[in-house]
Amino acid sequence: MGELDSIFNPGSVAVVGASRTPGKLGYEILKNIIDAGFRGKIYPVNPKADEIMGLKCYHSISEIPEPVDLAVIVIPARFVPDTVKEAVQKGVKGFVVISGGFREVGGEGVELERRLVRAVREGGARLIGPNCQGINNPHVGLCATWPLSTRRGPVAVVSQSGTVAAFMATGLEGEGIGMSKFAALGNKADVDEVDMLNYLADDPDTEVVALYLEGTSRGRELMEALRRCASRKPVVVIKAGRTEAGAEAVASHTGTLAGSAEVYEAVFRQTGAVAVDTLEEFFDAAKALAAFKPPKGPRVMVITSSGGSGILAADAIESRGMELAKLSEDVLSRLREELPYFCVIRNPLDLTGSAYAELYDKALEITKDHDGIDSYILIFGDPIPGAFEVIEKHLRETEKPILVAYLGGGDIEVEERRKFYEAGIPVYPTPERAVVALYNLWRSRKG
Amino acid sequence: MGELDSIFNPGSVAVVGASRTPGKLGYEILKNIIDAGFRGKIYPVNPKADEIMGLKCYHSISEIPEPVDLAVIVIPARFVPDTVKEAVQKGVKGFVVISGGFREVGGEGVELERRLVRAVREGGARLIGPNCQGINNPHVGLCATWPLSTRRGPVAVVSQSGTVAAFMATGLEGEGIGMSKFAALGNKADVDEVDMLNYLADDPDTEVVALYLEGTSRGRELMEALRRCASRKPVVVIKAGRTEAGAEAVASHTGTLAGSAEVYEAVFRQTGAVAVDTLEEFFDAAKALAAFKPPKGPRVMVITSSGGSGILAADAIESRGMELAKLSEDVLSRLREELPYFCVIRNPLDLTGSAYAELYDKALEITKDHDGIDSYILIFGDPIPGAFEVIEKHLRETEKPILVAYLGGGDIEVEERRKFYEAGIPVYPTPERAVVALYNLWRSRKG
Repeated sequence: MGELDSIFNPGSVAVVGASRTPGKLGYEILKNIIDAGFRGKIYPVNPKADEIMGLKCYHSISEIPEPVDLAVIVIPARFVPDTVKEAVQKGVKGFVVISGGFREVGGEGVELERRLVRAVREGGARLIGPNCQGINNPHVGLCATWPLSTRRGPVAVVSQSGTVAAFMATGLEGEGIGMSKFAALGNKADVDEVDMLNYLADDPDTEVVALYLEGTSRGRELMEALRRCASRKPVVVIKAGRTEAGAEAVASHTGTLAGSAEVYEAVFRQTGAVAVDTLEEFFDAAKALAAFKPPKGPRVMVITSSGGSGILAADAIESRGMELAKLSEDVLSRLREELPYFCVIRNPLDLTGSAYAELYDKALEITKDHDGIDSYILIFGDPIPGAFEVIEKHLRETEKPILVAYLGGGDIEVEERRKFYEAGIPVYPTPERAVVALYNLWRSRKG
Repeated sequence: MGELDSIFNPGSVAVVGASRTPGKLGYEILKNIIDAGFRGKIYPVNPKADEIMGLKCYHSISEIPEPVDLAVIVIPARFVPDTVKEAVQKGVKGFVVISGGFREVGGEGVELERRLVRAVREGGARLIGPNCQGINNPHVGLCATWPLSTRRGPVAVVSQSGTVAAFMATGLEGEGIGMSKFAALGNKADVDEVDMLNYLADDPDTEVVALYLEGTSRGRELMEALRRCASRKPVVVIKAGRTEAGAEAVASHTGTLAGSAEVYEAVFRQTGAVAVDTLEEFFDAAKALAAFKPPKGPRVMVITSSGGSGILAADAIESRGMELAKLSEDVLSRLREELPYFCVIRNPLDLTGSAYAELYDKALEITKDHDGIDSYILIFGDPIPGAFEVIEKHLRETEKPILVAYLGGGDIEVEERRKFYEAGIPVYPTPERAVVALYNLWRSRKG
């Protein structure tokens, strides 16, 4: 059991500052833990309430008659250090402090954070936050954050920024990919990205780590942690503060040094982390890494119903340093024989606007054992029902990644997209986004 | 009246190949024209039916007792040239040939296309297509394409690719921006991008032109048409086939030469067209251009509830060659006085996770007359109700563009987003996409 298990896998959780008022964080957090179906015991703590959401409410944490592993704290900053002291005396080993008003506001907040950390350390406990958006472990129903996410899956989200974390959680939930762990680190007064990477490297539920980073105070340890984690599972990382303007904003956001963009780039490259440029690319890459193994090489087969989308895919493939797979004479002649006359037999294989799902099936069938193809971009650029079933079937039969773009398909697209989401199979809104996700998948290969 | 008005603004339309079978193009097209509420007369033509969707059906186009301006044709290619001959004898001046099976399939298709064009030209008529996804003019309810789009707005979509056109139409419809004209040009046997640009330059309903281009056979005329059109209204263009792989795919898609990427880039730059890299950027830029005038300069004010998102925005601003606005001492001290203690007073202005809509209102109020600010990026990175009302109010009061990103806001975000869509005010899903749209808006300025 890792030392962060008191936080991510507690037997019981106290919500200090639990509230009966919808809209208040102390309400949302307690409600989300209940709604996510937390497996352990839940103790609301609030000096002014006897019951909240049907649960007995305690007036202080020491009043709770049974052991508490984790305390999630949502009370004003000035009360936090003493509350934590009381909690560690009770034996609490894990803290998540959502409340703001610490180092980030300067002045007495700095001293409050110092006292908070001291209390945690003296108790041999660990702390996430303060000034953070909480944690989640959907595998045990512990959604001590917002919005509510319950889908279990392979992606761990680690982020200084609560909004970035919530953006990822929302997407992974909505598109059926799911999360293994979620940690919005906030001020990182105790647990930071290094601790998280080390924990997640050993976490069997985590197969992909998605890390948003503004800076670090532990450069060497970060490098080691990245290397160790990335040697076991893909780590996709977005570094904010890569420009001068961004770096200045980092300094004022969490008081950390953004550091040189070049140094970070080198670190990511050397440790095998996959660094991306935008929030959308970050999400798209995590999605692809959650679903597919990296392709064995750069040779991509494009199958499309839209000639134009196929060209945009070809442009994106070449400009990212991958290439269109060359088809053997044998494969080409089989395609010519078995596909209707209106198809354009090459790569991109253009099934044209007359395409229907069975043609994609046939095209995959004919090409799938071809050694010259490492991966697929499949573009449904029309209202094509049955797209999902074809992809789902072939993903059961091949290890080659098949990245799907669906666009321009009206109501049928909406319906097909829903099926992809339910099954947790990635689908992208444009050819370029599918290609860039494939590119990041390819970059995640070892060696 | 422009010569393409017989196509985009006809008094009457015949749908040749109209069908009673849902799923068939001849059904979908007729249904969409009816459902879009076309103002003129609609004549289904089908030799085997007497009535379709409650309309009297004619067995041939010459049977129609009244004049017909536009014929939308959805019958097998081999019947098309003779049908067009018959129609021009009846006085039809506009044709949209949806059917494929012409030049793009080679062989006898090439000859069919030649005969089609000859018939059109001999009749002094104009033709869009063949092998295309039709046209739309929501201002008169003429949705001779799919999916159904009815929202009137300022954006004209012109595209060789039907899927790209449909992708744009779906987005502009769904996000409440709306279209002025829509033309999926297909094989461009007669009307091409040059004709469309010249027509749209004079079209009072069109304020923005979004052009997807694979290549042209009229380089010099394209340059002139781009220059003329872009001098009157912004033209955003995506050129497919910019790489070797893409250019090869272009050649096999529509038989046009993609041409050198560098030459096209120079043409776009010299003519004042705004060239973009991806389909998503194409849509995002059209959205911004539809709603805002270009900012007067590169100085951007960022207001955010999410520190992390603010940093990502700052990075994107600087890496696109824009800059964070410098705030005057006067503005800074007013912000310090009037905003709560927890706000971080700088640019990006971080209202923090404790933000609520009134703080954005106040921040806009204090900064809006500051000469040093040319535009705004507003980031709602939490569940913040009332975001829409604040933006809507300030857009009525200022000419400075305000580009909004909303993310990480759960159900409240969904609800707010809906309000933006209903009002047709652009909202972006990530800070970077809002910034890139702003950048393209900035590039669209004259001189």
